[in-house]
Amino acid sequence: MNYKHIFSQAIDRLHSEGRYRVFIDILRNKGAFPNARCFHGHNGPKPITVWCSNDYLAMGQHPKVVAAMEEALHDVGAGSGGTRNIGGNTHYHVDLEAELADLHGKEAALLFTSGYVSNEATLSTLAKLLPGCIIYSDELNHASMIAGIRNSGCEKKVFRHNDVAHLRELLEESDPQAPKLIAFESVYSMDGDVAPIDALCDLADEFNALTYLDEVHAVGMYGPRGGGISDRDGVAQRLTIIEGTLGKAFGVMGGYIAADQMIIDVIRSYAPGFIFTTSLSPVLVAGALASVRHLKASSEERDGQQAAAATLKGMMRDAGLPVMPSVTHIVPLMVGDPVKAKKISDILLAEYGVYVQPINYPTVPRGTERLRFTPGPAHDEAMMRDLVSALVEIWDRMELQLAMAA
Amino acid sequence: MNYKHIFSQAIDRLHSEGRYRVFIDILRNKGAFPNARCFHGHNGPKPITVWCSNDYLAMGQHPKVVAAMEEALHDVGAGSGGTRNIGGNTHYHVDLEAELADLHGKEAALLFTSGYVSNEATLSTLAKLLPGCIIYSDELNHASMIAGIRNSGCEKKVFRHNDVAHLRELLEESDPQAPKLIAFESVYSMDGDVAPIDALCDLADEFNALTYLDEVHAVGMYGPRGGGISDRDGVAQRLTIIEGTLGKAFGVMGGYIAADQMIIDVIRSYAPGFIFTTSLSPVLVAGALASVRHLKASSEERDGQQAAAATLKGMMRDAGLPVMPSVTHIVPLMVGDPVKAKKISDILLAEYGVYVQPINYPTVPRGTERLRFTPGPAHDEAMMRDLVSALVEIWDRMELQLAMAA
Repeated sequence: MNYKHIFSQAIDRLHSEGRYRVFIDILRNKGAFPNARCFHGHNGPKPITVWCSNDYLAMGQHPKVVAAMEEALHDVGAGSGGTRNIGGNTHYHVDLEAELADLHGKEAALLFTSGYVSNEATLSTLAKLLPGCIIYSDELNHASMIAGIRNSGCEKKVFRHNDVAHLRELLEESDPQAPKLIAFESVYSMDGDVAPIDALCDLADEFNALTYLDEVHAVGMYGPRGGGISDRDGVAQRLTIIEGTLGKAFGVMGGYIAADQMIIDVIRSYAPGFIFTTSLSPVLVAGALASVRHLKASSEERDGQQAAAATLKGMMRDAGLPVMPSVTHIVPLMVGDPVKAKKISDILLAEYGVYVQPINYPTVPRGTERLRFTPGPAHDEAMMRDLVSALVEIWDRMELQLAMAA
Repeated sequence: MNYKHIFSQAIDRLHSEGRYRVFIDILRNKGAFPNARCFHGHNGPKPITVWCSNDYLAMGQHPKVVAAMEEALHDVGAGSGGTRNIGGNTHYHVDLEAELADLHGKEAALLFTSGYVSNEATLSTLAKLLPGCIIYSDELNHASMIAGIRNSGCEKKVFRHNDVAHLRELLEESDPQAPKLIAFESVYSMDGDVAPIDALCDLADEFNALTYLDEVHAVGMYGPRGGGISDRDGVAQRLTIIEGTLGKAFGVMGGYIAADQMIIDVIRSYAPGFIFTTSLSPVLVAGALASVRHLKASSEERDGQQAAAATLKGMMRDAGLPVMPSVTHIVPLMVGDPVKAKKISDILLAEYGVYVQPINYPTVPRGTERLRFTPGPAHDEAMMRDLVSALVEIWDRMELQLAMAA
């Protein structure tokens, strides 16, 4: 058994497919984001503009968030010091869970150390508690949901992306008495499309299934209070569990679920990924609390983001760039080849000070490699003009196809 | 299918076994820890002393840690804004990984959002990359290691706790050509005993097995530089992977592994639990960096902790309390019944302002329910005298057995 040989082959496979990942080493400039410094391949930091952050609304630099974190840091210190059950349950955690329950119109909420852990822990635990449970999973669900479903050990039926008719077929062919759980996302983060939540809930009602909605790319950004697409569409009360993150639009770190009291109590009591881990630092929780409260009351950041996304999509379309048909704040540009996607990203960083990461397999299917831009309220039109002219120049240099300009 | 009925039964089981968990709502007082405020069952906060924190060395309130976090918060903001691959790789992450690699004398290190995720992601991914791998697991391994091993789908052989002869038997009966991984901890956190690391590595060498050592309850606290028991015993170079946490003795939050460059590269490239999650907030990483650097150079906190643990164990033994034979900083007091353990804890909190959580199944085996004290450099002798006299009074009141005083 030559372990080194096996590991070396695993790395070689990534290189040969052009999808070996190089992490770009940066520091963002608080107060001036999306401006940042890049430490990659240079002597000393070089100024860049970040176009691929999931700090969608720039809340990571919001004065209220920073002030709340500083206050918590000075009041209680760095970490929580324990699991939620053993010394790590702070008053901040209790308050944030109440705030998140209210955000989604649910009885209760539960914090996790990340959105990944929320999904993995909740889906695997919930399904294990329901013997014979069948999980119906959208084919584009996030890796963390797939992990939770796999780790539950339940039967899994995958329905075609956002395909209500296909889901109906799968439900019709299942045992009517079996417990059922339909798991899907609201905004799919790599394509920017949106699930037909109401229609999926109709099916859940008809077939007596529980529903699990991942709103990580929507919370803070959609709905009058930032409760996500289910808030915007007025259907939050139809969902059994809504899952969200504190690490994207809320600008901090951590994940959560919101549901009725009994489901929260069950997950809290049975999920190893919740029980056996140090709780979120109170500093993070205090920052998230300030962020959620602010975005419940303020629509300025949401409006600014939607305007920025519409402007950038329009400019890209006008320039003939292959922008994908996103209906959300996400602006994906199709490349279709991992090596070219990486090369465009490298040129943008080295020559134009533009940081956008190539998105390769396994994050997206092979052959659909892309660049994914996330303009927000802090990206101005001058930045967009610079970006689009750089892209057109590189598309030309690499002899890639531009559509007929509109 | 009545979902509510099933969930309600699951909660009722916990109540009937006396192990339904109530989280005690507290805020620690930075600069005055182990003093804290308790919001549980009172009008307004009540002062308490925390005896069950895993902020073992009180680094969560260390001025260097707090200052580093404040600086990062003001320089770069609240969250990282992305996964390590997409916008969330900061210069702090790069520096901390280099510092942790050095701490354990390894080529490289990799950060995770928690120790739980480090264990789950690394063990499940490593074993999946080695077809036919057999994992040998100590029977008292932590829930996160068990999750990683289960999720790997590999064959698992459980050896009796710290039993080298039993592990040898299991290795001898296995296919000599099969890839093998031996997974264990250094300090077992609920008993306070220590693994025979050198003898386990001898077996690994003899049977060509990889080794995985969880040092979460030892990093920062053992060895001349705080590299853990493997540092104290001078055997770090014998281990394939050392796993640690930033959320206990280092006082912040997060987890990591240290190993040779190729193994780190493989886990970095293939582990879903690493790839598909927002990276640690740079604020946390900056605090952890300051903490690791401080404890590499300073033994004052380690010495203070060992002295406090020895004093408290001595006082408990002198009072005839059933303190378990821990050889580390952990001071477990056996109760053996979940309802009594909870009741003692409730009385301590309500009448004496002493906060120590009862430890029940599934954290420890049924019938071994206990109280677990973690004295540190900030717990003084007056606090210990108050604690021991309270315990003796409660033992007496509840007609529990005290040993003949020494």
